[in-house]
Amino acid sequence: MNKQSDRVLVVTSRLKEILGDRLQTSRSVREHHSHTTTLLPSQLPDMVAFPQSTQEISQIVKVCDDNSVPVIPFGAGSSLEGHVNAPQGGVSIDMTNMSAVLEVAPEDLLAVVQPGITRKRLNEELRATGLQFPIDPGADASVGGMVSTRASGTNAVRYGTMADNILELECVLADGQIIRTGSRAKKSAAGYDLTKLIAGSEGTLCVITEVTLKLRGIPEHVVAGYAQFATLDQACTTVIEAIQCGIDVGRIELLDPAQIKASNAYSKLDLAVVPTLFYEFSGGEAKTNEEYELFAAIAEGNGVSALTSAKDAEDRAKLWAARHDAYWAALAQHPGQKGIVSDACVPISKLASCIEQTQEDLSELGLDGYVLGHVGDGNFHVVLCVDPDNQAQCEAAEDLLKRISKRAVEMGGTCTGEHGIGQGKQGSLENEAGPALAVMQTIKKALDPKGIMNPGKIFA
Amino acid sequence: MNKQSDRVLVVTSRLKEILGDRLQTSRSVREHHSHTTTLLPSQLPDMVAFPQSTQEISQIVKVCDDNSVPVIPFGAGSSLEGHVNAPQGGVSIDMTNMSAVLEVAPEDLLAVVQPGITRKRLNEELRATGLQFPIDPGADASVGGMVSTRASGTNAVRYGTMADNILELECVLADGQIIRTGSRAKKSAAGYDLTKLIAGSEGTLCVITEVTLKLRGIPEHVVAGYAQFATLDQACTTVIEAIQCGIDVGRIELLDPAQIKASNAYSKLDLAVVPTLFYEFSGGEAKTNEEYELFAAIAEGNGVSALTSAKDAEDRAKLWAARHDAYWAALAQHPGQKGIVSDACVPISKLASCIEQTQEDLSELGLDGYVLGHVGDGNFHVVLCVDPDNQAQCEAAEDLLKRISKRAVEMGGTCTGEHGIGQGKQGSLENEAGPALAVMQTIKKALDPKGIMNPGKIFA
Repeated sequence: MNKQSDRVLVVTSRLKEILGDRLQTSRSVREHHSHTTTLLPSQLPDMVAFPQSTQEISQIVKVCDDNSVPVIPFGAGSSLEGHVNAPQGGVSIDMTNMSAVLEVAPEDLLAVVQPGITRKRLNEELRATGLQFPIDPGADASVGGMVSTRASGTNAVRYGTMADNILELECVLADGQIIRTGSRAKKSAAGYDLTKLIAGSEGTLCVITEVTLKLRGIPEHVVAGYAQFATLDQACTTVIEAIQCGIDVGRIELLDPAQIKASNAYSKLDLAVVPTLFYEFSGGEAKTNEEYELFAAIAEGNGVSALTSAKDAEDRAKLWAARHDAYWAALAQHPGQKGIVSDACVPISKLASCIEQTQEDLSELGLDGYVLGHVGDGNFHVVLCVDPDNQAQCEAAEDLLKRISKRAVEMGGTCTGEHGIGQGKQGSLENEAGPALAVMQTIKKALDPKGIMNPGKIFA
Repeated sequence: MNKQSDRVLVVTSRLKEILGDRLQTSRSVREHHSHTTTLLPSQLPDMVAFPQSTQEISQIVKVCDDNSVPVIPFGAGSSLEGHVNAPQGGVSIDMTNMSAVLEVAPEDLLAVVQPGITRKRLNEELRATGLQFPIDPGADASVGGMVSTRASGTNAVRYGTMADNILELECVLADGQIIRTGSRAKKSAAGYDLTKLIAGSEGTLCVITEVTLKLRGIPEHVVAGYAQFATLDQACTTVIEAIQCGIDVGRIELLDPAQIKASNAYSKLDLAVVPTLFYEFSGGEAKTNEEYELFAAIAEGNGVSALTSAKDAEDRAKLWAARHDAYWAALAQHPGQKGIVSDACVPISKLASCIEQTQEDLSELGLDGYVLGHVGDGNFHVVLCVDPDNQAQCEAAEDLLKRISKRAVEMGGTCTGEHGIGQGKQGSLENEAGPALAVMQTIKKALDPKGIMNPGKIFA
C-alpha cells in the first residue's frame, strides 16, 4: 500500500471530480472541522467534503475505503469528547447541505429528516403541526450527531434518549453500501436491532444519512418551579419518591450550591444558596395539578425550605433559561478560563453520595466545579473551570474526571450518560465494559475491516 | 472434523461429567424441548442440560464450541416461530433451575433476575414492594425468552417493549466467555449498546444468564372499558387522535367482529358484533378521569356506538380476562383445529387499511381468522384456525401469513412486532431488511464463527 500522503492525494483528486468546490482543503475550513470544546488538542482532517445526497456520501466513503483514508462525519461540532477530531487525517463529511425535513407524518407522530438539521430548526419547522421533537441536549446539536452520541438532556426523564426516539436510519457502510435499519412501525422484533446498535456508535460503524424520528404532542398545561433543600440527600430522596409514586416527571434538574451562586449572578436570580431542584410537570390540567400537589407533599416530607410553582410562561422561561445558561454562568465566575464538563450516570439511589464525594474531590484537588444533574436519570455533570495554560490545574482536572468515571462504575453506573466516549473516555470505557469491550471491537472490525470509519473514537 | 454423531457423543460424555443427572437424553424430555406451537415440525435436540449457574452454562457452551455442537436456550417454550427447535440437533439449555430473583432495589426501580423466571412468578415475588414488571406478552413466558424475542404485548403502548425495560444483561458468548452489558444507570452513552443488540437476537449471539429489569409502580387508579364503532377506521382514528392529544394510554386493544363473536361465546360477554376497543387508563385519580373524559369526547367525535367505563376491579378483570382468552375463544369456535398467530406491525395510520385487506384475504382464501390488535402500537395479530391434516388449508394459511408480512413491509411496517423471526419468518425478514440482513449476518459470524448459537434461527 502507498504512503498515507499519496493515498490522500488520490482521494483529494477523486473527490474534487465528484464534488467540485464542495471539497475544501483550506486550513481555516479544516481547523473549523476539528474544533473541540475540551482540553483535547485539535487534530485536522486533510479535507472537508460538503455532500448534497446519500449517493454522494456513498461515493465519498467508497473512495475512502478503496484508499484506506479515514471518514469523519461532522454535524454541528458541539460534541464534548473530541468526536470530530481527525487523529489520522482523512475526510471530514460536513452535513450542512443535508439538513432538510423530508417528511412530517402527524398521524404516525414521525418526521423524516436529514442528519444535518439541528434540533432547534427542526422544532421551528414543526411548529405549525402542534408536535415537537423533545430531545434537548442543551447545545443546538445536529440530529445526526445526537443519534451518533446517544444524546439526551433534561427531557430524557420523560421521553428517553435519542436511541428511544429513532424509528429508522439510512446509513452508508464502510464499503459505500447504503442500508436502511428499522421501519416506521413503533416496534419490531425483526432480527438484530441495527438502529439501536448504530445509535451511540459515534460514526465508527457507518455514516448516518437519514433519520426517522418519533414526535410528541406539545403539552397543553405546564407547571414548573424550584424546590430547595438543606441537603443533597433530601433533594435526591424527593426525586426518588416522586418517581416511585409514578409521577410522570417532565424535567427535574439538580443544581448544587456553587451552581446556584453562579446562576444567581449570571441569570439575575435570587435563590438561597442550597441544593435546588428545578422541576416541570406537564400534560392535561388536572394531571399537572395532581402531580404538583403530590410532588409538593413529598418535598414537604423531605424538609423542603422553599417551593415555587409557576404556571406563567414567562416565569417558567426564566427558570429554564437559567438552567440552560448554567455552563456560561459557571464560566462567568472565572473570566478567561475554559469549561470542561464531566458526565457520569449512576443508579439514582447513589446520586447524592456520588455528588458529595465528587465535591470532596473538588476541594481536595483545589478545583472550581459546579454540579448540575438530570437527577431523574441519575445523570450529573460537573462544570470545571480551568486555566488551559496552568498545567497542574489541567492535570488535576484530568484526575477528577477519571475519579468520577471510576466511582460511577463502582456504584453500578456508567462513565457517560449522554456525551459518549470519543477520544476522552476510552480508558474509562475499558474499565466499565471489561470483556464486553472486545465484543464491541469484534463488531467494529467485522463491519469496518480497514478501520476507516471515524478511527480513534470509542476505541484506541 | 469428526462426524456430528461422534461429536455429540463427546459432548454427551463431557456434559455428564459436569452435570450428572442434570443432563437428560430421554426422548420424552427431548420432545418436550422441541415443542412448537405452530405448523413447524418439531426438531429434537440431542440432549437437554439443566444448569444451575452461569459458570455451568459457560462450561456447557465451551464444550459445545470445542466440538461444534449447537446450543439452544430454552425458557418456557412459549415462543411462536420455532425458536426452541433444534434443526441441527445439539444441546437444549433448560433454564428451569435458573429462575431466582437475585435482588430487588425499590429505590432504583430495578430487579436482578435469572432468565428462567416467568413474568407471573416475578410479579408474585414483587407484590410486597408495590412495584411491578409490566411487560405482558400474554403467555407466561420466561424473562430470558422475552428478552431474546424482544417481546411486548398489551402494556407496550405505555411501557415499551422488553428492549426498553432491560438495564443490564449477563451473557455467555459462543466461546464460553462471560460478559456483562450495560449498567444499573438509567441511560448510558458508553460504546455500542450490546444490551439492545442482544435483546431480540433469539439466542443466536449468546446465552442470557442474568437480566436486570426496570420496575414500575402499580398505578393507584385505573379506569377500563370498551368502545364500539361501526367501522375499523373509526376505531383506529379514535386511537390516533387519543395518542396525538398526549393521552398516556395504559392499554388499548382492537378486536374485530369475528373475535367479538368468539369472545362473546367463550367469555360470556354480550357485546355488539362490531369493531371494538378495550382500553385502560391509569395513574392518579384526576389524571385518569381527565384522560377518560378526553377519550370519550374523541370517541364521540368518531361516532362511537357504545362506551363503558369500569372503575370496579372485578368488571375490569372480566374485560381483560376476555382479551387474554381471545386465542382460546377463537379456537373454541373450531373444535379439533390448531391456532396459528400472525404478527405484523404497521404505522398506525395504515392499521385500519392493513386489517381490512387482511380480512379480504381471509375471505378470498376461505380461512377462519380472528383479528386482535395492540392498536396503539399499530401491531395486530390474526388467529387462524386450521385443521393440521388439511393440506390445502395449511397452504392457504401459509399464503396468508406471507401476504400479511409483505403488506406490512410495503406499508412501512415490519413482519413481526413482537414474536420474532425464528424459523417461520426468515423469508419475510429477507424481504424487509434488504441489504441490512447481510450486516446482521456479518455480526453473527463475527461473534459466533462456528455457528453453534441457536443455528437456523433468524437466518437460514
